[in-house]
Amino acid sequence: MPLLPFAQRLSERTLALNTRLCLGLDPRAGAYGSHAELRVHTLEVLNACAGLVACVKPQLAFYEALGLPGMELLEEVCGVAHGLELPIILDAKRGDIGSTAEAYATAWLSGPHAGAALTVNPFLGFETLQPFVEVARQNGGAVFVLVKTSNPGQADLQGGGVSEKVADELTRLGAQEDSGLSSTGLSSVGAVVGATHPRELADWRRRMPYAPLLLPGLGAQGAKPGDLAGAFFPGGTGAVVSASRGVQYASGLDVKAAVKAAESFRDELNAALESRS
Amino acid sequence: MPLLPFAQRLSERTLALNTRLCLGLDPRAGAYGSHAELRVHTLEVLNACAGLVACVKPQLAFYEALGLPGMELLEEVCGVAHGLELPIILDAKRGDIGSTAEAYATAWLSGPHAGAALTVNPFLGFETLQPFVEVARQNGGAVFVLVKTSNPGQADLQGGGVSEKVADELTRLGAQEDSGLSSTGLSSVGAVVGATHPRELADWRRRMPYAPLLLPGLGAQGAKPGDLAGAFFPGGTGAVVSASRGVQYASGLDVKAAVKAAESFRDELNAALESRS
Repeated sequence: MPLLPFAQRLSERTLALNTRLCLGLDPRAGAYGSHAELRVHTLEVLNACAGLVACVKPQLAFYEALGLPGMELLEEVCGVAHGLELPIILDAKRGDIGSTAEAYATAWLSGPHAGAALTVNPFLGFETLQPFVEVARQNGGAVFVLVKTSNPGQADLQGGGVSEKVADELTRLGAQEDSGLSSTGLSSVGAVVGATHPRELADWRRRMPYAPLLLPGLGAQGAKPGDLAGAFFPGGTGAVVSASRGVQYASGLDVKAAVKAAESFRDELNAALESRS
Repeated sequence: MPLLPFAQRLSERTLALNTRLCLGLDPRAGAYGSHAELRVHTLEVLNACAGLVACVKPQLAFYEALGLPGMELLEEVCGVAHGLELPIILDAKRGDIGSTAEAYATAWLSGPHAGAALTVNPFLGFETLQPFVEVARQNGGAVFVLVKTSNPGQADLQGGGVSEKVADELTRLGAQEDSGLSSTGLSSVGAVVGATHPRELADWRRRMPYAPLLLPGLGAQGAKPGDLAGAFFPGGTGAVVSASRGVQYASGLDVKAAVKAAESFRDELNAALESRS
């Protein structure tokens, strides 16, 4: 049976569990004495925090840095998340042309990763988004395209109207799904907008009405949950906010501290939404 | 013993073997009946063509699309190339911020991949290039940053002066190595410029005097060897031109045809250089 569209699963879970938090799961080799310890801790954090989050976001760089055992762990993390019915955003920022883009889409949006979402870098041009969007749609998955990243230097190449141009292309692509593919009004074409740009979030939300938003930058990068209400629709859906180090390593390798940090972020995001309405 | 800088190894091999061809090695699952067949053919093409090429460029997308066995094959391909003293360009187009960029650099430019070069996407901003450049320099490797890609849609986000802005940043980074790290005058900060823009190549060559150039687009994408002389320094160094499908699948899975195609491309590139001088 094909999966429901990603945005619909994400919205339903957001409302059912009342959480807009995305759990970044980025195992850092330097934090552990052995790969076995890294593996166990990463899976423990995932299991312990699953009920507090709308989705999980493994950052592929950290798994690749561990070599083949890291790629095996990534598959294991995805298998556990799948078993928990937790939507998965593979944060890989892939991007390439033609049949190479098709190969990346096959790798991360089909087969064992059918139904997952993938972050995509649009620098190579809008035609290069098409294979990712097609494979995502066929498998109940999604793409989250970089619109405006959370780092200070983003303006080097995303300034001068570039972010706006990408956003408008995502709206065009999302509107193709207006046939009611998803009951939420959200499409399979999402956007990454840094949580570090709080004053702009309401504008980006309006400019991309069909795009689920992924907001990185909470915690270690300095964004505050209380500033992010503008990213959400009035009903409290339409966006998720990710925290990685700030949860997994909230206090060393203490899993209880990770749970507490996730609860805090979740509650502060909800409080920000309530104080707005 | 640390490796010589990547650009120096590339230039020395270019001159010693009189070849400017880069062998793209992109195993496509659909071309084979089994993974064993894919593996054997890919390694055969590598071994048979090694003496005809300046370097080898595995495109990571195709290995990732094969799952874990693909990642194992990638390591095997790199091991064989290493044994042949063949410089390796890992075509991964990675790009991310802060400690995530560091993790990607660790994954693909250090450890078993020390001395390799990595293609990098600059969309997230110039500060995000720094970790890649640092790890490459420490290990005798290099980065090839996307300046102007070979596809028609590149102008969507690379137009309006963006490619020029990236090129000038690469020149700034390359000039940091002016202390004579490499006897070739080339730095560890290279550029990707599509071979499909032949009229501009001489301008890009002049604009980035310290950058080794990687030119994709030969063969399947329509670029002609005879049009590419402008990318090279007068001595015939400074650039490599990659062909992938046009070699590996020149005629089905016929390895002799792959060798013949590589010879042809090598000779046509050399002829173009000779007719210029």
